Amino acid sequence: MKISCTQENLIRGLSVVSRSVGKDSTLPVLANILLSTENKRLKLSATNLEIGSTCLVGAKIEKEGEITIPAQLISNYVNNLPSGNINIEVIDNTLNISSTNSKAKIKGINSSEFPLIPKIETQPFCQVSGSELKQALNQTIFAAALEESRPEISGIYLKSSGTQLIIAATDSYRLAEKTIKSNIKNKGEVELIVPATAMQELNRIVGEEIEAVSLSSSDNQIKFSFDDVELISRLVEGQYPDYQNIIPKEFATEAVVDVGGFISTLRTSSFFSQKDSAEVVIKINNKKSKIEIIAETGEVGKNVSQTASEVKGDDREISFNPQYLLDSLLNIETEKVKFMITADERVGALQPISSDKDNYIYIVMPIVKK
Amino acid sequence: MKISCTQENLIRGLSVVSRSVGKDSTLPVLANILLSTENKRLKLSATNLEIGSTCLVGAKIEKEGEITIPAQLISNYVNNLPSGNINIEVIDNTLNISSTNSKAKIKGINSSEFPLIPKIETQPFCQVSGSELKQALNQTIFAAALEESRPEISGIYLKSSGTQLIIAATDSYRLAEKTIKSNIKNKGEVELIVPATAMQELNRIVGEEIEAVSLSSSDNQIKFSFDDVELISRLVEGQYPDYQNIIPKEFATEAVVDVGGFISTLRTSSFFSQKDSAEVVIKINNKKSKIEIIAETGEVGKNVSQTASEVKGDDREISFNPQYLLDSLLNIETEKVKFMITADERVGALQPISSDKDNYIYIVMPIVKK
Repeated sequence: MKISCTQENLIRGLSVVSRSVGKDSTLPVLANILLSTENKRLKLSATNLEIGSTCLVGAKIEKEGEITIPAQLISNYVNNLPSGNINIEVIDNTLNISSTNSKAKIKGINSSEFPLIPKIETQPFCQVSGSELKQALNQTIFAAALEESRPEISGIYLKSSGTQLIIAATDSYRLAEKTIKSNIKNKGEVELIVPATAMQELNRIVGEEIEAVSLSSSDNQIKFSFDDVELISRLVEGQYPDYQNIIPKEFATEAVVDVGGFISTLRTSSFFSQKDSAEVVIKINNKKSKIEIIAETGEVGKNVSQTASEVKGDDREISFNPQYLLDSLLNIETEKVKFMITADERVGALQPISSDKDNYIYIVMPIVKK
Repeated sequence: MKISCTQENLIRGLSVVSRSVGKDSTLPVLANILLSTENKRLKLSATNLEIGSTCLVGAKIEKEGEITIPAQLISNYVNNLPSGNINIEVIDNTLNISSTNSKAKIKGINSSEFPLIPKIETQPFCQVSGSELKQALNQTIFAAALEESRPEISGIYLKSSGTQLIIAATDSYRLAEKTIKSNIKNKGEVELIVPATAMQELNRIVGEEIEAVSLSSSDNQIKFSFDDVELISRLVEGQYPDYQNIIPKEFATEAVVDVGGFISTLRTSSFFSQKDSAEVVIKINNKKSKIEIIAETGEVGKNVSQTASEVKGDDREISFNPQYLLDSLLNIETEKVKFMITADERVGALQPISSDKDNYIYIVMPIVKK
């Protein structure tokens, strides 16, 4: 391989793929990035066997070829070079890289040891914008289950049909569901579960400005592609819970509240709740048009904080883990949110107040008194 | 105690003293901040028995008194309150704190259990500006020894005489010495060793804009005071090494180099040096007017990077720990620096190039080939 490219292009490509490298040292080549030539461009690839990502970088190809080199070293090194042209040549499994004031030889591992990243050649079943996708991921991923004992809910649920994509996550104590629109007429109905780590990595590498992120799948794999980047992940097997049943048809009490005020009030009282089993009591008062939050721990003290709210329906007094509410509120971008409680006080919900208000709902179970 | 003050004033005072609280839980009261009334103001005090800090906060005092309350809880709580007036009242060892939308009861520990922070009533022996002090601390503290086996060099050396203050630190592999001017004619000659942690805390709480930081000492304690703040630390006992002897009278080779270029070249090659015993070879080339840095590790590869330099004196080839040079270079604020080597190649030095060039010198020992 003998190529040249700019420092700027190379650093962008490295930053896209570098987080997909493996951290497990049993297979050293996974800590490497594969450099190869493809269609007159430089292709960077990395994989940890669960997810893999590739990025095509503009380059002048003098001689084709491929090699794998340590991801961290090449990233650190290229990051620290000044902008400008970089010449790269592979000689005897060593990458020779030179620029105006610096020359390096980096020992590589033969590309034949690098695992194959699956290719997905099917047509996209759905296509969404980077900004909507990122907002949806921010509003849902946190609700996925952390433990692996129920793999299906440790993943993120995707359902594509018509001209929309539903993204949902639940850990059985709370559920976040966001609907975004597809740029294309989706191919039939597709339901998939994607590991949360893959969706986090997608969120990291997709920019707000990306107009089209295409989703395609085959053979238990999903591919997200945009510009010159592809992220490929295995899917989680299993049946996602039929969560639609737990979204209440109606709520008996609805309190409209400033997102900022609600966040600050919840945070304030959370300092006074138990560290190991955080719990605050939320009182919704219709006549006084306020939400009052009470937290008390024997050895610490007690706090009562309030925030103004327009309330419809009966007064309520119901306990929540304040962090569960904060997780969602901190990712709501509207000024006001509707906080809702069912008549039996067994379900609470948050919904942003905006023109397209129905596209996000967050369901959260109260703490039932023993 | 019954007082009122603004959230802004209280939060500023809490942020000044909060890092002086103890982390060791054997004496729970050390994790608390003492609130007391003094001269019609609220006084906040914290100590970990090695350093203590106090801050006076403007307040309306209705009834005098004192109490200690958990530092982290009160800081978190007050930080999260909106700006505005806060009412504070102590009832039965509990702090009752109320503001527009929030009321809290915080359980305290009786102030009689709080250790006395030593009072230092002597006149200041020296007075320096916040900006000069902070620059001096940034340029020296990192060179102090980390291990406690030689307590005197784990501290920072202060020497006040005439109208100047010398601040120095060494771990016996490198030495940083900075001289700054005193606003006052100093009281005689004072030599002290202050724990590095106290100087780090001082650096954190002193603002660039502070015009006068006064230093006074008595009974093995030092006090730094500015505005309404006092930081008091025990001194390190012992004799500071007579380091003046190791500062060479002259250097045989002097290379003037851009600080930014030198930093970037050192960083670039450091990625190729051994992780556990970092070493780069620096070649100063007079005829080619450049500094070349070479790093090589068997399993990683090799790098040769260069940066332009005006060189006076003979060519040199000498090995350094790149991090030792970076520690100083990263805190040099001038554009250019002089990198100097003695004729016997046993001492290297860095000195910023500025109008008052003699006020900082950094001595660093090369790695001697085995």
